[in-house]
Amino acid sequence: MYSSRTDLAMESLDAHNSFPGVDVHRWEESDIQLSEVVVRTQEAAEVLDKPCGTYLTLECSLLREHDPDARIAMANLLGEELSRMLVPSQDAPVLVVGLGNRGVTPDSLGPAAIDKTLVTRHMLGSEYAHSGMRSVCAIAPGVLGVTGVETVEMVESLAQKLHPRAILCIDSLAARDSARIGCTVQISNTGIQPGSGVGNHRRPLTKESLGVDVIAVGVPTVIYAATLARDAFALLAGEDQQEEALGAMERELRNTDLGNLIVTPRDIDAIVKNCATLIAGGINRALQPNLTSTEIAEMMD
Amino acid sequence: MYSSRTDLAMESLDAHNSFPGVDVHRWEESDIQLSEVVVRTQEAAEVLDKPCGTYLTLECSLLREHDPDARIAMANLLGEELSRMLVPSQDAPVLVVGLGNRGVTPDSLGPAAIDKTLVTRHMLGSEYAHSGMRSVCAIAPGVLGVTGVETVEMVESLAQKLHPRAILCIDSLAARDSARIGCTVQISNTGIQPGSGVGNHRRPLTKESLGVDVIAVGVPTVIYAATLARDAFALLAGEDQQEEALGAMERELRNTDLGNLIVTPRDIDAIVKNCATLIAGGINRALQPNLTSTEIAEMMD
Amino acid sequence: MYSSRTDLAMESLDAHNSFPGVDVHRWEESDIQLSEVVVRTQEAAEVLDKPCGTYLTLECSLLREHDPDARIAMANLLGEELSRMLVPSQDAPVLVVGLGNRGVTPDSLGPAAIDKTLVTRHMLGSEYAHSGMRSVCAIAPGVLGVTGVETVEMVESLAQKLHPRAILCIDSLAARDSARIGCTVQISNTGIQPGSGVGNHRRPLTKESLGVDVIAVGVPTVIYAATLARDAFALLAGEDQQEEALGAMERELRNTDLGNLIVTPRDIDAIVKNCATLIAGGINRALQPNLTSTEIAEMMD
Amino acid sequence: MYSSRTDLAMESLDAHNSFPGVDVHRWEESDIQLSEVVVRTQEAAEVLDKPCGTYLTLECSLLREHDPDARIAMANLLGEELSRMLVPSQDAPVLVVGLGNRGVTPDSLGPAAIDKTLVTRHMLGSEYAHSGMRSVCAIAPGVLGVTGVETVEMVESLAQKLHPRAILCIDSLAARDSARIGCTVQISNTGIQPGSGVGNHRRPLTKESLGVDVIAVGVPTVIYAATLARDAFALLAGEDQQEEALGAMERELRNTDLGNLIVTPRDIDAIVKNCATLIAGGINRALQPNLTSTEIAEMMD
Repeated sequence: MYSSRTDLAMESLDAHNSFPGVDVHRWEESDIQLSEVVVRTQEAAEVLDKPCGTYLTLECSLLREHDPDARIAMANLLGEELSRMLVPSQDAPVLVVGLGNRGVTPDSLGPAAIDKTLVTRHMLGSEYAHSGMRSVCAIAPGVLGVTGVETVEMVESLAQKLHPRAILCIDSLAARDSARIGCTVQISNTGIQPGSGVGNHRRPLTKESLGVDVIAVGVPTVIYAATLARDAFALLAGEDQQEEALGAMERELRNTDLGNLIVTPRDIDAIVKNCATLIAGGINRALQPNLTSTEIAEMMD
Repeated sequence: MYSSRTDLAMESLDAHNSFPGVDVHRWEESDIQLSEVVVRTQEAAEVLDKPCGTYLTLECSLLREHDPDARIAMANLLGEELSRMLVPSQDAPVLVVGLGNRGVTPDSLGPAAIDKTLVTRHMLGSEYAHSGMRSVCAIAPGVLGVTGVETVEMVESLAQKLHPRAILCIDSLAARDSARIGCTVQISNTGIQPGSGVGNHRRPLTKESLGVDVIAVGVPTVIYAATLARDAFALLAGEDQQEEALGAMERELRNTDLGNLIVTPRDIDAIVKNCATLIAGGINRALQPNLTSTEIAEMMD
Repeated sequence: MYSSRTDLAMESLDAHNSFPGVDVHRWEESDIQLSEVVVRTQEAAEVLDKPCGTYLTLECSLLREHDPDARIAMANLLGEELSRMLVPSQDAPVLVVGLGNRGVTPDSLGPAAIDKTLVTRHMLGSEYAHSGMRSVCAIAPGVLGVTGVETVEMVESLAQKLHPRAILCIDSLAARDSARIGCTVQISNTGIQPGSGVGNHRRPLTKESLGVDVIAVGVPTVIYAATLARDAFALLAGEDQQEEALGAMERELRNTDLGNLIVTPRDIDAIVKNCATLIAGGINRALQPNLTSTEIAEMMD
Repeated sequence: MYSSRTDLAMESLDAHNSFPGVDVHRWEESDIQLSEVVVRTQEAAEVLDKPCGTYLTLECSLLREHDPDARIAMANLLGEELSRMLVPSQDAPVLVVGLGNRGVTPDSLGPAAIDKTLVTRHMLGSEYAHSGMRSVCAIAPGVLGVTGVETVEMVESLAQKLHPRAILCIDSLAARDSARIGCTVQISNTGIQPGSGVGNHRRPLTKESLGVDVIAVGVPTVIYAATLARDAFALLAGEDQQEEALGAMERELRNTDLGNLIVTPRDIDAIVKNCATLIAGGINRALQPNLTSTEIAEMMD
């Protein structure tokens, strides 16, 4: 049966302001709505279909208008929150991984953000290094069909070689509510789960599989067509006929390829470009606390 | 009010096998279903929301499995049908125009097909020209937001300079039925209408606006989310409650940005690549009747 | 016979500080060396192989180290000088044309700069327009082998349609001295000559051919191998044996394809990226005198 | 002092038809000139600046005219010769590595060839696998400045994970003679040496460093400017003045950045495209002995 799939823990939790085994805090900072969902028990994890851990959501509807002030405010806040999640600085590098497929616009956020991430590991010790610069490396491992190598195999093997202090994965997400596309950033300390993301990862990228802290940063860029259909039906059918209507929909849709369809805005190219700038901005601030924004910008140009 | 929008005349005509002012013929050739819809009267044009003219559809479900034999059969048939629509050969070039946005995968069919179209105008008279080679030029004019120039302005000005014997526009289309995405090619002699295509052209590219025959070739790559929603509701509501259900849907959706959402398969990159090869294959055969497939392939590599 | 070819008027003029029919002025502003060469007579034009007109060169060796302050200073000065060359503002747009081939890194400066040029013509009158915004449109017409259309045909036809108040062409240039690659910007009011640029334009893009002022902006990205060889020989042979040595070289090289070889730095990708940012920065300032740098940057992101 | 650097063992060996510690065989097959250079002693390795091992060169001047028959003949022969060098087939995959920088056209051969290599590892055991299909995976690891990870680190870590039966590296090479650019393929069983290739690898990719057979396939796409200058001088100076002339040149050039300049044909985009098709064609034949050319082509489209 089609379920209402979302990669946002906040949406899984939905209207529930409280739920056993889940702590929720909501607040606002400079026009940004923040929600922190902490899933504490295995029961809650199963109901929400999200593993135990912390999920922080930053939301700002002005982002959809490509408001540059909103983007800078979001990037700053993202930088602060990422810093809090990272283990204290050591000499070991942070490995940033841009998940997804450059060839499918709504799945290209990860690779696009990697292109704007300041990579420094190769410069440390050279004349180009600023003092206080921290070690960062970054890869966009591509998709299985192009390389024949699973993303997790590539990241795991590289992690065994580079011994990073943390892995930071960037991915395109699926939401339930179209209003969240391009406006919401989710950070979590639970890594990437199988079946999540636009490209649907087959195997987990987690502390368990990779042996190092894995922080995931994502922005919803699509809704699954099946989710959209199911939610629309539930809404319209009214409470008393809901079950019946959903049953009818499931029967009707069983023979379609709805499960393979994604729903995305027409201007997804501009959304991905804008969000990649935002995400990379936040990451660069978090990973280079000793460089100013101007220094970072100059090194990226 | 949201309408069930489709760029395929065949879908506009729907189940109607006959309709005043419209001639329909359906037949099959080598596992390809062909439908020719001829819109003859202004009344029919208004009802179908398709201008008077001929719309030929080639359909083959095997294309979705990227079956190479199906692609070759489709390309051959497309080549034959395009030849029939083109004015008899003269020295004047054919101008092939790839519409759409390279940055949005489901809207990138036109530019992708241009990359595989054999361009010859600059070689004629040189040592590289084969005898019997016909003059072809090709452009992908990009999108308004990138150039500040409307596609029709660019094509019109170039047409006034090059005096082509015909203009052949390639575009990504919107369908109603997801089963047609990537499996159906529509050829028409009516050019490109405002509001059609994935990127929604603002102004017509037609014989009236450009002063020369305009043939349009397209493949559906998306469904509009509003169309999908409307059709699903109509289906499920049953005949007696249909009007009521649609009314409810319209009210509910009025405040969403559903009108800006497109629905597309996850593997849209592979679909666009496959269809661009097919379309360019058909065009190359139609425009170069004196070259063999092998000669064309060699010149493209 | 191989000549020492350069697209820089300053290099054609060489060490001559004075030459009949040519006015030269050299000065310095904020670590940038400026040279203005005005070719006044047909005799001078023939000797220098540069048509009558004004050639302004801005040079700053710090650019090669990708110094961001140098780039900003150059962009500002370029903006001022371009403003001076442009006809006073009218409602008519400026058409910016990025010449060259995206597929050959040292020839890709024009298209790369177009990607960073603020295009506004389509926004004027809409809610997105700032007050005081001037009309700009921009195209990268590609290369003859890809489109079958000469660049001049495309630009000329578009100019007849859009009636721009000026055309601003951006191109990759050839220099004599490798130290000038990526450090020098030349602005001229003589347009683009046949045989100039890295891709060697076949026909002129000039006021004569296009019917409107044509300003050319370029940066050297290559040296012709034949030029490099000839200059090295002349230098080494010493004054007395120079003619003999050059004769020997010409005989030796006659059967090679030296004429098709270009010489370029290994890090040409970074040079082109840096210079495209610089050129687009200068153009945006010149064409949008009523917008601040911040407003321009925000609209480009 | 500038040396006459080449990545082709055949050119290092030069006119010498015999040399102690080196075996040379030359023959011709279907208009292709083959040379096999076997470096047997450490002394010979030092003189030639090429490690002990086998270097096979295939050369066909028709390739420069993009002759499709020549390309197919070369790809067939390359396929046969690669098969001979590969260890007998096992279940283990072959890992194909495309070295170089996509952003610098003459350095982009490796990544371009990867795009045309049939990748199968992820399909084996699925419904899409042909029977007899062999396991192949492929990566283009990018360049140090973009990822912060050395190519050898990435390849080594992946090799430890995937346990390939062989690694096949594709790279752009530097030649001495411009006539060899785009016409010559070198295969060797010695891997990739530090300082070789257009992008100049820092660390070896060899059996010693990677623990598995490393076969290198390359095509010259550039000449180093210093090599070109040195060779031209030696040629012109005549035998008696050669040393003096070279001394003069070295002194003169010491303060230039000649060491960073590469020489490449203007049509390097077409050369790279053509050679990537050739190389991938040969690799696909060697790695998939149980598939026909048609089956391979169909799976690549």
